[in-house]
Amino acid sequence: MDVDIGNALASVASPGVSRASLERLDERVADAHERIERGMTNREHGYEALNLPERTDPDEIRAAVDPVADAEALLTVGIGGSSLGAATIANAFESDTETVFLDNVDPAWVSRKLASLPLEETAINVVSRSGTTAETLANFLVVRDAFESAGVDWTERTIVTTGDSGPLRDLADRHDLPSLKVPDGVPGRFSALSAVGMVAAAVCGHDLEALLEGAAAERETLAGSLFECPAYAYGATTYALDGRGAGTNAVMPYAESLETFAEWFAQLWAESLGKDELGQTPVRALGATDQHSQLQLYRAGPRDKLVTFLTVDGGPDRSIPETDVDDLAYLGDSTLGELLAAEFEATEASLAAADRPNVRVELEAVDEYELGGLLYGMEAACVLAGELYRVNTFEQPAVEWAKKATRGLLGGGEFEEAEAVAEKTELRVER
Amino acid sequence: MDVDIGNALASVASPGVSRASLERLDERVADAHERIERGMTNREHGYEALNLPERTDPDEIRAAVDPVADAEALLTVGIGGSSLGAATIANAFESDTETVFLDNVDPAWVSRKLASLPLEETAINVVSRSGTTAETLANFLVVRDAFESAGVDWTERTIVTTGDSGPLRDLADRHDLPSLKVPDGVPGRFSALSAVGMVAAAVCGHDLEALLEGAAAERETLAGSLFECPAYAYGATTYALDGRGAGTNAVMPYAESLETFAEWFAQLWAESLGKDELGQTPVRALGATDQHSQLQLYRAGPRDKLVTFLTVDGGPDRSIPETDVDDLAYLGDSTLGELLAAEFEATEASLAAADRPNVRVELEAVDEYELGGLLYGMEAACVLAGELYRVNTFEQPAVEWAKKATRGLLGGGEFEEAEAVAEKTELRVER
Repeated sequence: MDVDIGNALASVASPGVSRASLERLDERVADAHERIERGMTNREHGYEALNLPERTDPDEIRAAVDPVADAEALLTVGIGGSSLGAATIANAFESDTETVFLDNVDPAWVSRKLASLPLEETAINVVSRSGTTAETLANFLVVRDAFESAGVDWTERTIVTTGDSGPLRDLADRHDLPSLKVPDGVPGRFSALSAVGMVAAAVCGHDLEALLEGAAAERETLAGSLFECPAYAYGATTYALDGRGAGTNAVMPYAESLETFAEWFAQLWAESLGKDELGQTPVRALGATDQHSQLQLYRAGPRDKLVTFLTVDGGPDRSIPETDVDDLAYLGDSTLGELLAAEFEATEASLAAADRPNVRVELEAVDEYELGGLLYGMEAACVLAGELYRVNTFEQPAVEWAKKATRGLLGGGEFEEAEAVAEKTELRVER
Repeated sequence: MDVDIGNALASVASPGVSRASLERLDERVADAHERIERGMTNREHGYEALNLPERTDPDEIRAAVDPVADAEALLTVGIGGSSLGAATIANAFESDTETVFLDNVDPAWVSRKLASLPLEETAINVVSRSGTTAETLANFLVVRDAFESAGVDWTERTIVTTGDSGPLRDLADRHDLPSLKVPDGVPGRFSALSAVGMVAAAVCGHDLEALLEGAAAERETLAGSLFECPAYAYGATTYALDGRGAGTNAVMPYAESLETFAEWFAQLWAESLGKDELGQTPVRALGATDQHSQLQLYRAGPRDKLVTFLTVDGGPDRSIPETDVDDLAYLGDSTLGELLAAEFEATEASLAAADRPNVRVELEAVDEYELGGLLYGMEAACVLAGELYRVNTFEQPAVEWAKKATRGLLGGGEFEEAEAVAEKTELRVER
């Protein structure tokens, strides 16, 4: 990815960061880069994620999915980091394989999804590091049951990705299922470029080598200066802008195929940096659609936002047919791609004209190589930002409370958190 | 809708609002309510939206869609307020009619959507008040062309919803298409309960009367005190919390069928209140999925957020099959619906335990009556908030700049905004 931070400079935007401030910050970037490289070399928890381009073995993934390589549909059962990376990659590219991501436990929705699939031609991709994630395991039990009720042998159609031990690992062993390992030292939200994210890509026939090559090329750009490394330029600029009041980061791809990327980014940013009362709030947006929904706020609301544009050069296009309506004649000389590009340029300029900070992240295409680079680059940007914030980037302790309370509420043990649920303060206003 | 603001009180949350502050604010709510009632009575611009339950004629809408009532698929061509209300209603309920919303101009995506539809069995629902919205008209020209290329007469399958004049009105007249009027005085984001939002619902066979009855019942709750009116309780509480630092409002339905509602709400809130450097930033979330993505940030990040939960009582459920795995046995005694409900209660309590403000909005079911009430209630909440902020709720002037620049860039006239695009400040960091 290439990054343009020109519209985040104090000479353009308020809040903005001056060139001199960036140069001072660059000393901290150099130190952080040393820390990151050391973590990678020592394969420390979290930093190990940045080694995935070399560690992930595409042949192993392809071998695991071989029994279901001709599936018409793939049902991925996972949530959070066990789903978003896979969905981002799968949704970026066209495929003959229909993909469904069962990442919620809404009963009506689960039933509808299951009813929509040709189960006898559907593969199951179940992903949970611990093998105990309540939503994922509940859904997997439901899915198994649905396959059995339909007379389809789920054991012949299931791939398991999990840790070294736990219920899912036991189950894979008992039924001799093809299984892959969630890599050690790689938190879920950083695992897109491992089996966690790539099983779905393999079933869909996407180019795993190109994903990893793009990531490896991005890895080569990591350097001790934000002015030399796109990922660090992005991570350092967002950190600097947050410190100057831009606590919200709206990520706005101008490509429908990258809509899920914004979801993936939102988890990466929120869980990694959202702690110790710090961290930018990621907002998922989409160009050009959200120009007709969010742009008013971005341009004229509080000065607490950075907008991150994600643009793609080239790709397939489609002509807009000519019309004899005077007021619309200008459209007939254009293509949808030209219209979309003009919308982006206009929106970017409209924010700059209102002194609103924005950053442009550019891809050359939506292909495996470029997406691999984007995912890796944003992970590196996030790790860099975590070093600058001095937070523990790779943990997410604040989600444990609700997990315990949920388990307690369902009778899965005694937890004081479950008791706190009953003590809710009410102030109800009813019809 | 019922609203519970207990977890937004200062006794629970920081930021929070004290009961005494709410009582003082209630004097302003009484004044605002008078202003709103006057606006409704006088059918003033914007306020007229709150009269839609009485003004909208379901028979007229059903008559217009009658020629395509048996369509297998419905392609809605619109963007922003011309799409989100219709999509919210259509996506909330099951239907035998497949719905596609063409609300972006990404060429690859438009081509894929068109290729996926059985055009000879597809109806077209084109919506633009002005009849000149670039994205909508470009897409409509493309759609017409695709139908013609497939040998399907689009003039027999198209319903137009637009203003009194403009290119779309001319076109409807020229081809004698069934057409409906965007109601006067109703901004797009407030038009879900008019033809703009309800043509799609009619084609899908949803109960238009129940939508309007639910809205009318909510209208009956409007009163001069936030303690008596759920909509005003919500609008006033969000306003008070914003003033105390909760500049972000994360809307988190615990129902997949209401995911699009969060999109609709985000436009309503952002375009109506995001001006004069004021306004909360709406964030689209989804329970339980985002517990594994955003909850860490909501619970432990900056104290700048309100979380609005949207819950549904009842509905279809699905048992979780029993398992002999000890660690998962508790799931086998439950249903997916019970798990989802426990996840919600646990998440709500986990935020309260961390002193993070949150509000609960409750529906009795996901049906037309309840959704009509929810849409109306949130519109009334937004209008009330606009009165409290003292902004011009019904305008969106900040989006005009980019529209002019886009037009200029595509050769549709001379605009100084288009020239500004070329003056971008660059600071590029490249691979």
